[in-house]
Amino acid sequence: METGDRIRVVWKGKTIEGIAMPQTNKEKIVLKLSSGYNVGLDRKNVEKIEIVGKEMLGRPKEKKEEGKEGGVRILGCGGTITSKIEYKTGAVYPLISAEEFKTAFPELNEIATINLRNVFSVLSEDINQEHWGVMAEEIKNEIKNGAEGVVVLHGTDTMSYSCSAMAFALQNLPVPVVFTGAQRSADRPSSDNKMNLLNAVFTAKQDLGEVVAVMHATSSDDFGFVHRGVKVRKMHTSRRDAFKSINIPPLAKVDYRTKKFEKIFEYKKRSAGGLRFDNRFSDEVGLVYFYPGIKPKLFDAFSDYKGIVLAGTGLGHVSTNPFKDKHAKPIIEKIEELVESDVVVAMASQCISGRINMNVYTAGRILREAGVIGHLADWTPECAFVKLSWVLGHERNAKKAREQMMENLAGEMGERSIYTEEEHE
Amino acid sequence: METGDRIRVVWKGKTIEGIAMPQTNKEKIVLKLSSGYNVGLDRKNVEKIEIVGKEMLGRPKEKKEEGKEGGVRILGCGGTITSKIEYKTGAVYPLISAEEFKTAFPELNEIATINLRNVFSVLSEDINQEHWGVMAEEIKNEIKNGAEGVVVLHGTDTMSYSCSAMAFALQNLPVPVVFTGAQRSADRPSSDNKMNLLNAVFTAKQDLGEVVAVMHATSSDDFGFVHRGVKVRKMHTSRRDAFKSINIPPLAKVDYRTKKFEKIFEYKKRSAGGLRFDNRFSDEVGLVYFYPGIKPKLFDAFSDYKGIVLAGTGLGHVSTNPFKDKHAKPIIEKIEELVESDVVVAMASQCISGRINMNVYTAGRILREAGVIGHLADWTPECAFVKLSWVLGHERNAKKAREQMMENLAGEMGERSIYTEEEHE
Repeated sequence: METGDRIRVVWKGKTIEGIAMPQTNKEKIVLKLSSGYNVGLDRKNVEKIEIVGKEMLGRPKEKKEEGKEGGVRILGCGGTITSKIEYKTGAVYPLISAEEFKTAFPELNEIATINLRNVFSVLSEDINQEHWGVMAEEIKNEIKNGAEGVVVLHGTDTMSYSCSAMAFALQNLPVPVVFTGAQRSADRPSSDNKMNLLNAVFTAKQDLGEVVAVMHATSSDDFGFVHRGVKVRKMHTSRRDAFKSINIPPLAKVDYRTKKFEKIFEYKKRSAGGLRFDNRFSDEVGLVYFYPGIKPKLFDAFSDYKGIVLAGTGLGHVSTNPFKDKHAKPIIEKIEELVESDVVVAMASQCISGRINMNVYTAGRILREAGVIGHLADWTPECAFVKLSWVLGHERNAKKAREQMMENLAGEMGERSIYTEEEHE
Repeated sequence: METGDRIRVVWKGKTIEGIAMPQTNKEKIVLKLSSGYNVGLDRKNVEKIEIVGKEMLGRPKEKKEEGKEGGVRILGCGGTITSKIEYKTGAVYPLISAEEFKTAFPELNEIATINLRNVFSVLSEDINQEHWGVMAEEIKNEIKNGAEGVVVLHGTDTMSYSCSAMAFALQNLPVPVVFTGAQRSADRPSSDNKMNLLNAVFTAKQDLGEVVAVMHATSSDDFGFVHRGVKVRKMHTSRRDAFKSINIPPLAKVDYRTKKFEKIFEYKKRSAGGLRFDNRFSDEVGLVYFYPGIKPKLFDAFSDYKGIVLAGTGLGHVSTNPFKDKHAKPIIEKIEELVESDVVVAMASQCISGRINMNVYTAGRILREAGVIGHLADWTPECAFVKLSWVLGHERNAKKAREQMMENLAGEMGERSIYTEEEHE
């Protein structure tokens, strides 16, 4: 039995047919079923194996198309939406030639004039500050070359981080920058790539001047949501409607088939002024989720960083008690030391949703007095982290960096009236 | 103007009356309004200040009641539900004498025979593994002394961590252990303490043998949800319905007023067998949320730990690429080193919802091969962290600890059929 063979297995009395996948587990036979799902059958219950055919899938040739004037530019930055499983090795490879996309999605040409280009092909968990720099540069070039809108194909795992990064790097946008991806690969019957891609391209033609993510709104193939890039978060490991807007509603509902783009929440229109561009990000920034019993010593690991985001509990708290080891400084003193040595320390909440308020409880007030910023921010921990990476990419002065962090740069800070400032709803 | 004074302020032409709170910010006057909300008025817009009365709130005397046979035992472990603001200092103090509770909530006696006892009075962000040990011991004693059910009053910030801790420490429960708390303090009109407390006491009388959290189901005072302790998470900083069951529905809907306890999801009944008790927790355990550009060096900070939980991206990934600094080992090698030195490394997902599947993508397979556990687990990062603290509290052998981690000990691992094991929905 070889990888790619069509196999018929009798397992616990049932006959199961599928394509042999790379067999990495000795105790199991892994088959891809015609439903598109993989199944692992424990060998001890396998009564019979029969090879009934070959399923050889070659690797298609990659082809680049140079950018042309106008139209919607699609930039491939890796991820499931641009990939297909190679049965021989189990490896993921890019599928993003213009030809293949046009064959796979003939509807694309009905929506827009399309140009496709592969920027890089990276698993999304490998994308870092350097990739953000390149991505922003490439998007800027497409805009300068007259793109009507830009679609970025990206892995879903870190899409919200990259969305935030682009929202800070590319401000005052004259065209939409639309991220999309797939939770299920193209070879699976439940793949969400088609609807997401077509809705994204349709969104890229709208009068919208923001970085957004367009993904399935429900677990059906009915319509998509347009999420503000700085407010979106992947909230489920596998569902097609995993992406949620945090603390605001989605900006719009989109359906390329009925040509509907229905506004739900106020968004920025295409900007007439010039694009503001700064693609410098610092990777001397950390993100620490607080947990019970966290050791003060852990904070020493960040002493040579430029900034850290603390994802505290509730309204923005960490333990302010003396540590049980009387010789150790409590966490609060470690944080004070970091602030004094010009590390920018920002608070977010591990609740994910809701607004930070460091005035309600003692711990919050102590943290504010220690110089921790983030009071009244309603950013996600991940957006706060990306914002800090961007701010510290160009601002060396800690005081100025702290001020910039508290400015609403790209819609990441929801407004609230002065009058209700200390209300914690 | 002194703290506690009743003040009338003319601000931007409006007359606002309230009680002066401790004034920590020189640029603002902070008043508590009759609505219960605090308001911060910038001094530069204040046209007139008038003292119109005194509002002196003394600190009530604390009173302990010794446990008696039978009835529902309420254990105070701090938090907003047991506290009231002292206007003089802004400090939080416990309100948990039986007398005060009975005066505040006369309905309590209609529901159950009540005994109240203060275990400790700690801000919930200060609760750690030692407190879990004490809490478990105290609950065990109440059960041994014939409690019909146990209610634990706890701060909401870390309630889900403590719920998980008690679910592992106290297995095979003969009575319900019901956590509850308040998102708004008792002196606020929108306080959720009454409904939560009464629903919790009502739940403690049911035929339920699990650790649960009973909190507001909606933002209205209509009914409560009973959440499985190992599956609940605080998902909003301030909303009264901040608590959500992750990956399963709530176990039941509860309304003490209509005496309804409606089952939604299968739960354990009161166990006839003996209570299994183990209150040892290790604090040599860490929780690390992965982020783009995370430095491999950070993992050195955990080299002397017994275990860490990685909150990876998506289905359970971290970067497996060589780090940009060619001299640094990639993260994956750091993780391999930890596993080889018998640190237990478990995977959870920063998506919060959904199931880990380390078979779908290359990064997952590499992590599994490196010895990272958690494949197919649907635990939250926080529950996985608490479980690891508990397992490593009594199990020194890394191999056995890894095996125990993958057992479903307290309903923290949702079941799924073998047949669909590799399906990633």
